[in-house]
Amino acid sequence: MSKKRYAYIVRKETFATAHRLCVNEWSDEKNLEVYSKCTNNHGHNYKLYVTIKSEVDPVSGMVMNFSEVKRIIRENVVNKLDHKLMNDDVEEFKNMCPTTENVAYVIWEWLKPDIPDLVEVKIEETENNTVIYRG
Amino acid sequence: MSKKRYAYIVRKETFATAHRLCVNEWSDEKNLEVYSKCTNNHGHNYKLYVTIKSEVDPVSGMVMNFSEVKRIIRENVVNKLDHKLMNDDVEEFKNMCPTTENVAYVIWEWLKPDIPDLVEVKIEETENNTVIYRG
Amino acid sequence: MSKKRYAYIVRKETFATAHRLCVNEWSDEKNLEVYSKCTNNHGHNYKLYVTIKSEVDPVSGMVMNFSEVKRIIRENVVNKLDHKLMNDDVEEFKNMCPTTENVAYVIWEWLKPDIPDLVEVKIEETENNTVIYRG
Amino acid sequence: MSKKRYAYIVRKETFATAHRLCVNEWSDEKNLEVYSKCTNNHGHNYKLYVTIKSEVDPVSGMVMNFSEVKRIIRENVVNKLDHKLMNDDVEEFKNMCPTTENVAYVIWEWLKPDIPDLVEVKIEETENNTVIYRG
Amino acid sequence: MSKKRYAYIVRKETFATAHRLCVNEWSDEKNLEVYSKCTNNHGHNYKLYVTIKSEVDPVSGMVMNFSEVKRIIRENVVNKLDHKLMNDDVEEFKNMCPTTENVAYVIWEWLKPDIPDLVEVKIEETENNTVIYRG
Amino acid sequence: MSKKRYAYIVRKETFATAHRLCVNEWSDEKNLEVYSKCTNNHGHNYKLYVTIKSEVDPVSGMVMNFSEVKRIIRENVVNKLDHKLMNDDVEEFKNMCPTTENVAYVIWEWLKPDIPDLVEVKIEETENNTVIYRG
Repeated sequence: MSKKRYAYIVRKETFATAHRLCVNEWSDEKNLEVYSKCTNNHGHNYKLYVTIKSEVDPVSGMVMNFSEVKRIIRENVVNKLDHKLMNDDVEEFKNMCPTTENVAYVIWEWLKPDIPDLVEVKIEETENNTVIYRG
Repeated sequence: MSKKRYAYIVRKETFATAHRLCVNEWSDEKNLEVYSKCTNNHGHNYKLYVTIKSEVDPVSGMVMNFSEVKRIIRENVVNKLDHKLMNDDVEEFKNMCPTTENVAYVIWEWLKPDIPDLVEVKIEETENNTVIYRG
Repeated sequence: MSKKRYAYIVRKETFATAHRLCVNEWSDEKNLEVYSKCTNNHGHNYKLYVTIKSEVDPVSGMVMNFSEVKRIIRENVVNKLDHKLMNDDVEEFKNMCPTTENVAYVIWEWLKPDIPDLVEVKIEETENNTVIYRG
Repeated sequence: MSKKRYAYIVRKETFATAHRLCVNEWSDEKNLEVYSKCTNNHGHNYKLYVTIKSEVDPVSGMVMNFSEVKRIIRENVVNKLDHKLMNDDVEEFKNMCPTTENVAYVIWEWLKPDIPDLVEVKIEETENNTVIYRG
Repeated sequence: MSKKRYAYIVRKETFATAHRLCVNEWSDEKNLEVYSKCTNNHGHNYKLYVTIKSEVDPVSGMVMNFSEVKRIIRENVVNKLDHKLMNDDVEEFKNMCPTTENVAYVIWEWLKPDIPDLVEVKIEETENNTVIYRG
Repeated sequence: MSKKRYAYIVRKETFATAHRLCVNEWSDEKNLEVYSKCTNNHGHNYKLYVTIKSEVDPVSGMVMNFSEVKRIIRENVVNKLDHKLMNDDVEEFKNMCPTTENVAYVIWEWLKPDIPDLVEVKIEETENNTVIYRG
């Protein structure tokens, strides 16, 4: 183990959140045309996967302590989004449509200061729809 | 195959819906005390499992055609709940708290007239919380 | 542990099999009308769940040895169905439409002689369609 | 809602625990013969499903508050089993072989005093092996 | 959001299809030797994951509308493969062995003209066997 | 198919193994501080995903025969780890803490000689914690 080894760790957390897809500047007709039924209030059990790449500490054998990663994700992300209606309750989405692409971007911004080795944010909105953001 | 054979079929459908747990007659404090964070607007990817028990038709080999079961569940349930905020958009929940127990009951009532052999409605609200209603 | 205790054990096995839904006596039109696209050759990763109920042996702490249950299911069921086209390759389905209801019945008949305490055969044909047979 | 309605709720919790299958009174040869490789120390991510049946409270719309069920399972079960080696660290398994059948029985005994309406304890030891205990 | 942001979206679709692995020019013995039991007719519930990378539209917040992606995959792929026997019913596989590697390649070719930003086709043939193709 | 095509194949295998996280040179207090409850003996159902990248053979249509990949993983990895207590029973972990990062590294070393085209080892220790190693 004399040479440096790198690995990735992925932590999964979940949150249950409501949203509606709409651009505030658009008419209801336009929003319905673009977002279809997703422009109504509805919700999801979001699955969030946070990936970190770093050297494996040669003594502890860890990239980063999973319990620390969990604490940061819960404080920086889950507490802000879980059991909320994004458009009304979360500052960042009052003027930005909470598509999964935008949610992934906002989560990245919330995590990066505390996880400098962050390399990927992945969100499964449903079993069928997933978004990946890598900064 | 001279004697009658019975079997159960289970059809799964999903819907993405928002709700908040609250009893309209209660104060906000009381609702918060009982339902905790669930009294905020939030949402889920609900998984619905509908079970039917009946004789297996000795010629077609079916309890009921899965494509017919699917059609009924989509018309009677999914179209009413999917991409909605239950408390505001669904008549039945304007005066009844949309706990999963109550949602299961309402779905049973919606399905029973068209599926007389219905024996169970099961709803997974999250990976951890499930409710079963058998009439 | 002086009084008898009963428990259920459930063993899952899988097989990958092709079939087409059709009643040989029916015309192609009739089969298409009843079974729709399922009357074409197609296939599934079947998930089979076999449930056994019995007294828990007070010394070994087992209903039945899982390794023995596995052996029986593989010999009596998986070897007969896995990587086959049911309608052409499996005697029982040459004159019986291989609906999941009928597959569950046939599996029950294959298992019962070697597992007298069998109480349920459950088959997930797809994530959305499941059949249960209890004899 | 004038007549009483009953429903079932199911709460899932998980724990990561080690064990070895052996009857202390038996020789190593006998244990190996009966339990095969499972007589070595090894471990699982156990998935526990606890089912409760009761009247749905006509006002709150709940069988029992899921957050209360979660608290009881964590205190009465998870805290005792999670991140332990059952045979050495858990009193009940010092003289009882920790088969999943016996684990389900012990969990039932731990839960029943605090959940009188308990009707089922289900444990998935692996994706393939599950045990159900109903008292 | 003044600078361009890129993200990936992944859409999952499923199809239930039969096939047999064989090279037409080979003898039955040779095919059996190479493909073992997979040279018999059998089938799978295929899970298809299609990944697209593109700029996130700064107004709509989308890489590409998921409903449009779904429509294209269903038209270009699912309609051609679902409920078919690949070797007999699908032109492309009449002279090409339908291994998952080749199925992924064919799906890529079918999707690329309508999804220029396609970056990955992933197919889960079973829970244990997956193939990824990136052009 | 005149030009070379490359693809990735991923094979999943599972094993049920016990371990405790500790650095032998550290005090119990230090190990408890760093690894928390994970420093106790406990266990997991590990899910291992092995990824191989290579040219698709233009005749057989395969990157590598899945049955051969399965055989190598079982011989080189599963037989060494399944139903063991890593710290006591596996030479490599007698002086290296069996964190998932280190387990991934050891598995890579075991596989690489027989799978030169190996590109990734991924281990899901639990539903929430995953590690990826790419050499």
